[in-house]
Amino acid sequence: MADLIYDSTKNADLRWKIKAEVSDPVPWIRAGDKEYLFLDHREMGVVNAGKTGFETVLITTLLDIARAEGVRTRAEFMVFLLARFAPGEKSLTVPRSFPLDMADHLRLHGFVVDVRHPFFPERAVKTDEEIDAMRHTAACTVKGFERIEKILGEAGIEDGLVTWQGAPLTSEWLKEEVEIAFVRAGVADVEGMIISSGPHAAIPHHKGEGRIRAGESIVCDLFPLDRRTGYFADLTRTYVKGAPSPRLQAMFDAVKEAQARAMKAVRPGAAAREIDGIVRHELGEGGFDTGDKGFTHSTGHGVGLEVHEAPSVGERSTDTLQPGHIITVEPGLYYPEHGGIRIEDMVLVTEMGHELLVEHPSVFAIA
Amino acid sequence: MADLIYDSTKNADLRWKIKAEVSDPVPWIRAGDKEYLFLDHREMGVVNAGKTGFETVLITTLLDIARAEGVRTRAEFMVFLLARFAPGEKSLTVPRSFPLDMADHLRLHGFVVDVRHPFFPERAVKTDEEIDAMRHTAACTVKGFERIEKILGEAGIEDGLVTWQGAPLTSEWLKEEVEIAFVRAGVADVEGMIISSGPHAAIPHHKGEGRIRAGESIVCDLFPLDRRTGYFADLTRTYVKGAPSPRLQAMFDAVKEAQARAMKAVRPGAAAREIDGIVRHELGEGGFDTGDKGFTHSTGHGVGLEVHEAPSVGERSTDTLQPGHIITVEPGLYYPEHGGIRIEDMVLVTEMGHELLVEHPSVFAIA
Repeated sequence: MADLIYDSTKNADLRWKIKAEVSDPVPWIRAGDKEYLFLDHREMGVVNAGKTGFETVLITTLLDIARAEGVRTRAEFMVFLLARFAPGEKSLTVPRSFPLDMADHLRLHGFVVDVRHPFFPERAVKTDEEIDAMRHTAACTVKGFERIEKILGEAGIEDGLVTWQGAPLTSEWLKEEVEIAFVRAGVADVEGMIISSGPHAAIPHHKGEGRIRAGESIVCDLFPLDRRTGYFADLTRTYVKGAPSPRLQAMFDAVKEAQARAMKAVRPGAAAREIDGIVRHELGEGGFDTGDKGFTHSTGHGVGLEVHEAPSVGERSTDTLQPGHIITVEPGLYYPEHGGIRIEDMVLVTEMGHELLVEHPSVFAIA
Repeated sequence: MADLIYDSTKNADLRWKIKAEVSDPVPWIRAGDKEYLFLDHREMGVVNAGKTGFETVLITTLLDIARAEGVRTRAEFMVFLLARFAPGEKSLTVPRSFPLDMADHLRLHGFVVDVRHPFFPERAVKTDEEIDAMRHTAACTVKGFERIEKILGEAGIEDGLVTWQGAPLTSEWLKEEVEIAFVRAGVADVEGMIISSGPHAAIPHHKGEGRIRAGESIVCDLFPLDRRTGYFADLTRTYVKGAPSPRLQAMFDAVKEAQARAMKAVRPGAAAREIDGIVRHELGEGGFDTGDKGFTHSTGHGVGLEVHEAPSVGERSTDTLQPGHIITVEPGLYYPEHGGIRIEDMVLVTEMGHELLVEHPSVFAIA
C-alpha cells in the first residue's frame, strides 16, 4: 500500500502535507513510514522539509537516468519513481483529482489504483495553529465589511441610486475598495468575492455587477486567502442602503434568527444535518420556502485550506461534528422579486460546544 | 462518442467553452451536435448560454427524479444524465483532471472513458477577441512594473539595504504596492506573484521574502488575471538598486541578448524547440551553463486562461508555432552566489512573424 499525489499545492491535501506552496505539479509518495516529495531546481529550496517529516528528492538526476532508460512521459516517470521509492508496492491510493491518464498508465503497469476521498480526512479537524491562522484570516475579512459599512454610511441616495463621492456606487467599485482593504490587511481575494444587489443578490453564486439601488439588499460574501498560511475565511453580511421593504426586513430577521438557533446547536457529537434541519425548520415556520426557492442551498460547510471542504452541513450530510471542526452557518433566502439575504459566520466546534471564530455584528439597514 | 467535463470553471477548458465563471463543479456533456451545461439554482442566471451555443439545464427537477430512482452519489447522477442526454453513447472523452472515482464508476457501468489532452487543443490559437483581452491584461501588468520602478527610483541605500519612505524595503512591501496597482487597474494577483531578491532570486519559483539589499538582483515575475475576461498575462523584469557586480551585469546582458535572438525567430511554422535551442545556444556561447545550473528551466509556454498552457517552448517540445499562439520568451540565469536574472515577454505569433503583446523596456540598474 502506497499513497500517491501528483499535483501542485493548489491541491489542498498536498498543501496541508508539505506546508509550503509549489506552483507546478510534483510527485509525493508515502510508502510504509517513508514520505518523499520530488522537486526540480525551480522548487527545491522553496520547501523546507525538515520540520514536516518527509524527504525532498531533487529529480534532475533521476530524470536523466529515467530518460536514458527510455522514459518519455510523466506517467512513465511515475512508474520509474514507484519502482525505486516504493519497491514491491502494487496497491496505490490517490486523491480523486489524480490525473486520469496517469492512473490508467499505472494500471497498465500492474498497479491497483484506488481513490480515497477525502484523501486526508484528518484535515477537517484543525490544530491550534490552524485555528489561529484561520482566526487571523477571519479578522482580516472583517476589515472588508468595515470598509463596506463605512462607504455605505458615507453614501447618499439620488434618484433611487446609491451614490458615493459624487458618483453612482457599483458592485465593482465596492469590490475594488474591499480588495484594497484586503491587500493592506495582508490577505488576497483569490477566488473572487460576491458583492451583488437587487435581482443578482437572489442568485446565490452571482458575483454581482452594476449600480446599487437604495432599498435593495446587497449580499457581500467575502472569502479571502492568507497566502502566508494558506488558510481561507468565509463570511457573509447583507446590507441595505436606505429603508428596506417590510418583506425584505422580514427575510433578514428570519435568516438572522435561523442562524442564531442553528449556531446554538453546534456542539461535538451533533449530526451536521441536524444543524441544517434547524435552519430549514425555522425558515419554514416563518412562512418561507426551502428547496426550489427561498432557502435554495445548504446551511454550511467546513473551511480551511479550501473555501469549501469537509464537513458538509446539509440535508444529506452524514458528518458528525467534532472539536476542531470549523464550519460556516449561512442561512439565506432568495426571491427574485425581493432580492437575496445571506448571513454567514464561521463557528469552531469546541469540547464545550462552539465559539465564533470572529465576531462582527450583522447590521442590515444603513441610513 | 460524447465529450464530458465535470468541474468548475477553474478548469480552463470549461471556462473557455462557457465564457462565464462557475464556482462549483458542474457537468457539461457534448453528444453529437448538442451541448448541455447542467446548473443548479445558485449558478443558473450566472451563465448566459444564448451566445455560446449550448443549452443550460436546471438540475433541480432532474435531481429529484434521480433520487426517486435511487441515485445517491454524483457519479450515479452522471450515469443518470448520460442515459438521458447522450443516449446510446458508451464512449466518453474527458479531460485528464476528470475525477478518477467518477471515471471508474462510469467504467463499471459499461462506459469506455478516455482522456484527451489538451482537451480543446484549439484553445492554444487565440481569436482576435482573446488577443485583445490578453493585451489588456498585459498592459495592466506593466502598471505593476511601473510601480516597482517608481519605488526603486525613490528608494535610498543605507548600510547596504534598500530603503523607502524611511524603512527597509522588503519583497512583501513591494508585492503589496504591486497588488494595489493591480486592483486599481482591474486585475488580480490570484496566483501569487514572485518578487524575490538575493539568493531567493536564484530559485526560479521562490516567491520572495524579506529585505532587499543594494546590488542584488530583484526578479519580478507578475502574472495577474483579468477576472472579467478570464485571461492572464505573464511578464518578468529583473532590477537591481544601485550598482550590480560585473558578473550580475554580464548575466543580465546575456539573458537580454538571448531573449532578443530567440524572439526574432518566432514565426509561423517554427518548431517551438528551435526557439528554446536559440536561448540555450546563446547562453552557452556566452559561457553560461544550461541544464542543472545557469539556465535551469525552459524558454517559455503558452498563456491564456491558464498562466501555463499549450504550446510549450522547451527542449522536448513537439509543438509548431501557429498564428494566434501567444507564448512567453523568458530566458533566465540562476547562480546562488550571484543571484537570478529573468526577462519574460509575451509574443503573439502572427501571419507575418510575431509581435510583442505589450512593450515595456527592460531596465536593470536603477540608481
